[in-house]
Amino acid sequence: MDTAGLVARTLRGDPRAVARAISLVENAAPELGELMAGLAPRTGRARLVGLTGPPGVGKSTSTSALVTALRERGDRVGVLAVDPSSPFTGGALLGDRVRMQDHATDTGVFIRSMASRGHLGGLSWATPHALRVLDAAGFDVVLVETVGVGQAEVDIARHADTTVVLCAPGMGDGVQVAKAGVLEVADLFVVNKADHDGAHATVRELRQMVSQADRGAAEWRPPIVSTVAASGTGIEELVERLDEHHTHLRDSGELGRRRHVRAREEIEAIVLHALRERVADVHGHAALDTLADEVASGEGDPYSAAGTLLAALER
Amino acid sequence: MDTAGLVARTLRGDPRAVARAISLVENAAPELGELMAGLAPRTGRARLVGLTGPPGVGKSTSTSALVTALRERGDRVGVLAVDPSSPFTGGALLGDRVRMQDHATDTGVFIRSMASRGHLGGLSWATPHALRVLDAAGFDVVLVETVGVGQAEVDIARHADTTVVLCAPGMGDGVQVAKAGVLEVADLFVVNKADHDGAHATVRELRQMVSQADRGAAEWRPPIVSTVAASGTGIEELVERLDEHHTHLRDSGELGRRRHVRAREEIEAIVLHALRERVADVHGHAALDTLADEVASGEGDPYSAAGTLLAALER
Repeated sequence: MDTAGLVARTLRGDPRAVARAISLVENAAPELGELMAGLAPRTGRARLVGLTGPPGVGKSTSTSALVTALRERGDRVGVLAVDPSSPFTGGALLGDRVRMQDHATDTGVFIRSMASRGHLGGLSWATPHALRVLDAAGFDVVLVETVGVGQAEVDIARHADTTVVLCAPGMGDGVQVAKAGVLEVADLFVVNKADHDGAHATVRELRQMVSQADRGAAEWRPPIVSTVAASGTGIEELVERLDEHHTHLRDSGELGRRRHVRAREEIEAIVLHALRERVADVHGHAALDTLADEVASGEGDPYSAAGTLLAALER
Repeated sequence: MDTAGLVARTLRGDPRAVARAISLVENAAPELGELMAGLAPRTGRARLVGLTGPPGVGKSTSTSALVTALRERGDRVGVLAVDPSSPFTGGALLGDRVRMQDHATDTGVFIRSMASRGHLGGLSWATPHALRVLDAAGFDVVLVETVGVGQAEVDIARHADTTVVLCAPGMGDGVQVAKAGVLEVADLFVVNKADHDGAHATVRELRQMVSQADRGAAEWRPPIVSTVAASGTGIEELVERLDEHHTHLRDSGELGRRRHVRAREEIEAIVLHALRERVADVHGHAALDTLADEVASGEGDPYSAAGTLLAALER
């Protein structure tokens, strides 16, 4: 299939084309530029909802329940499960995918796991690119699920319009959420397993933290929704709160601001990648490594090294 | 003072010159290139030790106790306290600086607080640049202290040779540390306030986590040091462990690897900054914003936008 054909089929929402397009993203294929240019006019419509939280909190179950609820009202739903394998851990396990099988025969649902390797310090550009594909393919809502390990749970807020942070009762989760700095990026909290002991305490703790972090009446104050995702309890309320947040984002202009920042970072990531490639073309693949070694050893300074890279572009 | 004079005085360790040089870094002054080039030949000698942990854990007290211990054996010590004000919180408070007054009259100690604004998603390039200044000024050890809020506690590992994570008894700190993904970046744990209730439990919890995360016999296994920083208890052991880790870094080649990655990121940050400036020169200051808006709205795609930026370099 040529790229133009792939674009056309992706825009029609053909699941095999969508899967193929995301594979091109994962492999950083040379056709990416043409693919993204073809998809661009149809992007910006999907609502991007990030879900994060520590392992065992019920992210997969919650995602699945959310898919069911959104499907009931006719939304087409894309799910991107991002594995934030870091250079440190070499691979974190994502939650149980089994429940996702519930949606295996539903053509209005597209589910994809994706490894997010790439540069130190966060999810790579693969995530925003994959979200672009799902957006252009006409999904009304795209859920991005990531396991909450440090950096990743903060990073997901950079890719989503709305960030949902999941907690579960016990184990000082509330305290953990506050300390990990997740409070600042959460637009909505879910206390899942709300039928377990200690759920009320967790809600209370979260409520207190949210009220302390309150930044004035005009701003969004993250609601706290109690759910039992396994039975669907509370999911309807979760959908309502997500709708409210989307309305808030749109009416306040924050949606545009978030998407602007995202686009800017995406552009700059591509520029930096192109730059690395060109330097490799001009100076050989070891050039940047050599420069970095020189700077690390004190033989060179970072500004002169940067000048060398920039000069490579001006040939 | 001209830049050449500032370089010469900084290299002699003149505290006023060092302070001035760091101010140039904070203000992204145009002289930075010349300053960094002048300092480069004398960099790469200091041991960079990062200290992080949640508020209230005793970071300032621990830093001060560490300074005292390092001074006793004759090391010159620089301290950089980084305030990871994020675009989200608009300013996090650093710990109590009062105890640092103990060292106010010691010319072998240089202490500086620095706001780390800058780009979304981490400490800005200001931190590595300021560390370069202190390194070149001849400090044997440079302590970088940051309050542990989410991203910042992981990011500090990108700037330091050795990352020390501080905990205190109670409040499920151990669990918090594991969940926040800090475990992967910690080279050494300190359980401060070890005379408080629950200190043993915290140590036990950490030990279990460290052993579960163990990545084979050949690798460094983060030691756990119990301290009462306010009275100096355990600080001697902390210094010993820091020395051991430094030896490990050097002997295993990991020191060179870490410094290489750091230099590379520093170079690329400068390139990206230069790129933004040049695009502004050619297309006006709103150019990148305009491109980002076009991409966000679907009028443009990120690859074409990146192409426009790159073309600006090739004029």
